[in-house]
Amino acid sequence: MKIQVLTDVLKANQTIALENKKIFDKNQILVLNFMSSPGAGKTLILEKTIEKLKKDFNFAVIEGDVATSNDAERLAKYDIPVVQITTESFGGACHLDANMVKKAMETLDLSGVQILFIENIGNLICPAGFDLGEDKKVIVLSTTEGEDKPSKYPVAFRNSDLLLINKIDLLPHLDIDLDLLMQNTKKVNPELFSIKLSAKTEQGFENWLDWLVREYRSKSKKKSSSGK
Amino acid sequence: MKIQVLTDVLKANQTIALENKKIFDKNQILVLNFMSSPGAGKTLILEKTIEKLKKDFNFAVIEGDVATSNDAERLAKYDIPVVQITTESFGGACHLDANMVKKAMETLDLSGVQILFIENIGNLICPAGFDLGEDKKVIVLSTTEGEDKPSKYPVAFRNSDLLLINKIDLLPHLDIDLDLLMQNTKKVNPELFSIKLSAKTEQGFENWLDWLVREYRSKSKKKSSSGK
Repeated sequence: MKIQVLTDVLKANQTIALENKKIFDKNQILVLNFMSSPGAGKTLILEKTIEKLKKDFNFAVIEGDVATSNDAERLAKYDIPVVQITTESFGGACHLDANMVKKAMETLDLSGVQILFIENIGNLICPAGFDLGEDKKVIVLSTTEGEDKPSKYPVAFRNSDLLLINKIDLLPHLDIDLDLLMQNTKKVNPELFSIKLSAKTEQGFENWLDWLVREYRSKSKKKSSSGK
Repeated sequence: MKIQVLTDVLKANQTIALENKKIFDKNQILVLNFMSSPGAGKTLILEKTIEKLKKDFNFAVIEGDVATSNDAERLAKYDIPVVQITTESFGGACHLDANMVKKAMETLDLSGVQILFIENIGNLICPAGFDLGEDKKVIVLSTTEGEDKPSKYPVAFRNSDLLLINKIDLLPHLDIDLDLLMQNTKKVNPELFSIKLSAKTEQGFENWLDWLVREYRSKSKKKSSSGK
């Protein structure tokens, strides 16, 4: 019975996610859904990304949190459209769903936007099963979290398209075994592309920016060749 | 409608939690429910605690994870009763509930046990609302997660009795503002007692051990004075 309810919820979510995706595709917007544990550094990655690329691209952000609009405020200073979803009003939900994103889009001016970041709620479990209409899922893991996380939270790693291993500036002070982390990652998702970086020191950051620009171009190209 | 369902679930959980608590109290076992983000260091704290106090106390552990029995294996080497609950078989649930703990107790030999640690699933949202029958909730926050976590995940901080701020050995390499963290904590829970420590270097660890022993003695005293 419980499983039936969950299946219905996921099915309804999937329908709305596809509607969202149609709108994103029609407007030629690359949409990335960012997932991580609390404090892995998603917002700082977005801040630095927007700072570095805002001359070249028009960004927008949908922020998800249980409470506070702290992260939306951090991003609003870049003069881009930002909408905060707080799930306190949805019973403190532990993830965004497609309907919340649909509602956020009603208040978000998407005209001219080329890249939309959706920062999901800090949680390695709940967000993984809910598509929002994004092109790609990006999972951020901090080096401080340890090498066992892909094994312990397999769905989030399995459903992601890119793994950003953040806070590599702390590696000299940690015991994490990066080779073992990569082995554990490969076991749950052999296709998962990964980039090591530090949003703080910006080490490796250009590899992430290159990936992002490549993804945007690849989506634009598909769009123009489809003739719509 | 959705809220009605949630209320029913929480009510049913509360009933079983009280049954669990009766068994724990009858057996004079101090029970602590540990919550945190993934990778905040719960398991290492438990390992070091058991290592240091196992001459003086009989411990048992219930481990919660979505997948893997890694943590149970880490703790089993101390020759104490350990049961692993993996929620994959419960639809990948993002928290333990009282019924899972009740079932775990069927396979856990509690005779002679004085302190039971329940390590909840790494998640700052879902576990907070579900009592398991514990005496106290302990929330572990890593210094790497930032000072805004009490504001962003208020329920977990509000419902906890002790805050362990772990990984203070990394402070020289981080930008976290500990005063602001304490202010944010006080705002959501003015009563929350906190201890700063490093499970790795053991700095401050004795303060946590003192708290634990004090809690155990206080529970035993209450028990004996109640004459049962």
